[in-house]
Amino acid sequence: MSSDRLIYLPLGGAGEIGMNAYVYGYGKQGQERLILVDLGVTFSDMETTPGVDLIFPDMTWLMENKERLEAIFITHGHEDHIGAIGQFWEKLGAPVYARAFTANLARHKMRDNGQPEEAIRTVSAWPEVTEAGPFKVGFLPMSHSIPESAALVIDSPDGRVIHTGDFKLDETPIVGEPFDPELWASVSKSGVKALVCDSTNVFSRHEGRSEASVGPEIEKLVAAAPQMVVATTFASNVARVKTLAEAGERAGRSICLMGRAMRRMIEAAIETGVLTDFPKVVSPEDAGNIPRENLMLLATGSQGERRAASAQLARGKHNGITLKDGDMFLFSSKTIPGNEKGVIRIINQFSERGVDVVDDSSGLYHVSGHANRPDLERLQDIVNPQMVIPMHGEHRHLREHAKLSESKGRQSIVAVNGTMLDLSGNEPKVTEFVETGRTYLDGSVKIGALDGVVRDRIRMALNGHVIVNVILDEDDEPLGEPWVELMGLPEQGSSFAPLVDVLEEDLNQFLGRAGQKTLADDDKLEEGLRRVARNSARDEIGKKPEATVIISRLS
Amino acid sequence: MSSDRLIYLPLGGAGEIGMNAYVYGYGKQGQERLILVDLGVTFSDMETTPGVDLIFPDMTWLMENKERLEAIFITHGHEDHIGAIGQFWEKLGAPVYARAFTANLARHKMRDNGQPEEAIRTVSAWPEVTEAGPFKVGFLPMSHSIPESAALVIDSPDGRVIHTGDFKLDETPIVGEPFDPELWASVSKSGVKALVCDSTNVFSRHEGRSEASVGPEIEKLVAAAPQMVVATTFASNVARVKTLAEAGERAGRSICLMGRAMRRMIEAAIETGVLTDFPKVVSPEDAGNIPRENLMLLATGSQGERRAASAQLARGKHNGITLKDGDMFLFSSKTIPGNEKGVIRIINQFSERGVDVVDDSSGLYHVSGHANRPDLERLQDIVNPQMVIPMHGEHRHLREHAKLSESKGRQSIVAVNGTMLDLSGNEPKVTEFVETGRTYLDGSVKIGALDGVVRDRIRMALNGHVIVNVILDEDDEPLGEPWVELMGLPEQGSSFAPLVDVLEEDLNQFLGRAGQKTLADDDKLEEGLRRVARNSARDEIGKKPEATVIISRLS
Repeated sequence: MSSDRLIYLPLGGAGEIGMNAYVYGYGKQGQERLILVDLGVTFSDMETTPGVDLIFPDMTWLMENKERLEAIFITHGHEDHIGAIGQFWEKLGAPVYARAFTANLARHKMRDNGQPEEAIRTVSAWPEVTEAGPFKVGFLPMSHSIPESAALVIDSPDGRVIHTGDFKLDETPIVGEPFDPELWASVSKSGVKALVCDSTNVFSRHEGRSEASVGPEIEKLVAAAPQMVVATTFASNVARVKTLAEAGERAGRSICLMGRAMRRMIEAAIETGVLTDFPKVVSPEDAGNIPRENLMLLATGSQGERRAASAQLARGKHNGITLKDGDMFLFSSKTIPGNEKGVIRIINQFSERGVDVVDDSSGLYHVSGHANRPDLERLQDIVNPQMVIPMHGEHRHLREHAKLSESKGRQSIVAVNGTMLDLSGNEPKVTEFVETGRTYLDGSVKIGALDGVVRDRIRMALNGHVIVNVILDEDDEPLGEPWVELMGLPEQGSSFAPLVDVLEEDLNQFLGRAGQKTLADDDKLEEGLRRVARNSARDEIGKKPEATVIISRLS
Repeated sequence: MSSDRLIYLPLGGAGEIGMNAYVYGYGKQGQERLILVDLGVTFSDMETTPGVDLIFPDMTWLMENKERLEAIFITHGHEDHIGAIGQFWEKLGAPVYARAFTANLARHKMRDNGQPEEAIRTVSAWPEVTEAGPFKVGFLPMSHSIPESAALVIDSPDGRVIHTGDFKLDETPIVGEPFDPELWASVSKSGVKALVCDSTNVFSRHEGRSEASVGPEIEKLVAAAPQMVVATTFASNVARVKTLAEAGERAGRSICLMGRAMRRMIEAAIETGVLTDFPKVVSPEDAGNIPRENLMLLATGSQGERRAASAQLARGKHNGITLKDGDMFLFSSKTIPGNEKGVIRIINQFSERGVDVVDDSSGLYHVSGHANRPDLERLQDIVNPQMVIPMHGEHRHLREHAKLSESKGRQSIVAVNGTMLDLSGNEPKVTEFVETGRTYLDGSVKIGALDGVVRDRIRMALNGHVIVNVILDEDDEPLGEPWVELMGLPEQGSSFAPLVDVLEEDLNQFLGRAGQKTLADDDKLEEGLRRVARNSARDEIGKKPEATVIISRLS
């Protein structure tokens, strides 16, 4: 028996939806040659990560082992699979392989971050394979909600692994290759050791619906609309954008793409040949001259993002266009958990303008890009793998997916980020835990999730911030009275005097009482001033603010 | 024709879901005698109102007209109808009328805020009526997700108005009076001028389901559970709590109420006689000694609230009880938009413990407390009002409800908070706009939504906070170098030197270049220092922090 082993290590995406990053390795323990599958981001929110621009997986482990990294493979172009490539490529330094459309998007990421576009190498679909150390990796076409999504066929001396990436089983996907069960069966025929599989929709019990099913419904809706029509969807869902545009065209409407991401995606799809017959579009400038009943806008911002085209239209004007009574706005999308309030906000803003909003509550105008439970079962039946490793999902998804797989008589295991599995034997075994976590892009700086920066911001947001300033002379005697500044705090509280005055008075009294030992000791003095300021605020306004104390000594 | 008129003025709840407060008036213009219906709160969130404890409608208009206020009527005990009574009663000073269960809850609110409980007067249901100036007001029993909910029959010299409060048409509500179509028809027979009607579920197209429909499903689920069962729902949904408890009892389980709100509501329901046969409960202390397969916990926290019993159980231990592999947790509730992330968080925490979570995605274990679209139509048919005024809903709900009413041939209008309607004629007419808004309870202080306090908190959370401290001597010369403190900002940026050092160096250079005129002028100096600090930070870390500048002069 060889002492080489095949390992799997999720660094992101296992235990969460977002920021996918999966490592595979083969070789002697601790010396495995490695490949990385996907390098994505996730998005911040006000509740847990205020002010943060993007969230990356903590790639420290892989950066420390970069000399063992042979290659990076990107399954598809969604931000949670590709978004961190420009930020981390320099620290990893391996060639990046992707299919043409994905590679086009990846090159933009590299350029935006001052990285060499040549590092991105375009590969063709299976049966072409790329050698990467002990691995041979092929891109097996798979349907999803973005063109040219691919599963990876990862061959190692220990057998074949199929890493699905994100997928659905769509045999009529409008854009991109349909799911081809015969191709998948033929690839699997020689035996698949492990199916590492998308878990997003494991709780959806009905069979997934094809992208082709929404076209006729959208067409009916648009044909019946009396005035302007605006539709939003994910810009990367090129098939949907095409379906929407064609519905508009058939209804005799000019099509206008609103929002940078929407234009960028359609350009990339046309440049790389995945999109060949998109209706002619008019510029936002020209759109203003077209009668509203002959116009259809396709706008970014399906998640209610404040700066996207949809939110701007909801607030008033975008590119000179204003919606009004009788116009229709269509969400051809679902709302991602956490974005509900933003979406509802723009629906109500449209309502105030008399715009009729059609959302997906009817189920007619959107289909998911992920495999539902029966689809997951079907894929397992086709691939017939020895083991199923659930990936891309929160803990509840991974657990449910593992239970599903075990109920079908397959080995399975819940492996969250940082759990290294040894896949060499007949069942997956946990072999090591690697420290993982999140890295924040904050402005232009990467900060660790545990650095305390974001914690302090949240505290200021919840409690307000009081700044205490004291000057001491050469003899450690207070020079003048303490000075207080407030931010994010009410101007007055229970005593109806300005809060600043109340705090300054209490701090002054504290200084008057403080002994020479306290006055001479920065730490003691700071602690005392902080305590007085916070307690005084609590008595006055019922909350204890964050406090910053500045002691200036003239010595 | 009389110069008296009948007016309707929503101060909260019209244009939002939450913080209901509706004024009715009758009399000469500007001298109408007034009644207030409901006085509720809404809840804060991190995105728009960080640190805020509760949100009230801005009651300034009514406080300014308090001498015209005859009475306050509370339709039911939900926080968004009753929650502000203790906070505003003193400023309004009118007697408060409610049915027994609601009055019990209202007295607690008064006591908690040091207000006289006697101000709350218990009234019986229709046909009893209370005179309040020109009005006679009766409480017409109506089913909802809390006991003793009532619509108000408001008689004025100008005719009868029915204000529904929140409701559903449930003829088998488990606890409290069923909807009685004959009683409603008899009350409406003599003619109803206006139906002022709950709009929450106007987009739900199927007929509403009865509370009685969930019992058998919950019973099956609990009977089949092998280990401990925990269920959560809104504590105020006494019928649901009873259904859950009875399902546990029938499965041979001891029932334990977890969380203060849950115990409080059941107590109030028993005290006031609305709940007569609730299963015997064990204390949390005793629950620990009961075999887990014989125990069922009913816990607060269906919305994922961090401090509620459910979240504490998800994180580990609560009252000495820990959930484990094989236990079941049931959400007998729906997730209110905006709370998804909190709910998902605890589902994943339970998943990590091996607890099987059952949510409402099947539709079997929860029914809404609000009337769906067909129910709204049915009530209109029974009441046959001259006009329908949609209330309690976001703009989209009010608009849809008005369209629905108009499609049935009735006068209707969208009147959001602050819109005073004259209902005297044959159709509702907008007669005035009153300034309204939101008041925040922040700690123990009430602050206006536009005071800037919360805006500053949000800015600190998004941008961090830099404090600049400069001391100038008697000749306006800098004494020593400027001093910088950071909060919520990274320690270093692009130059890999501490950010504090970089800022202090730039500020020092600025001071060195600054002329006497700038140094002598606090405003100019502050503005310059702020600009330098923010720009220097932008160059270094890619974001412009909030800045507080403290200039101390020794003169």
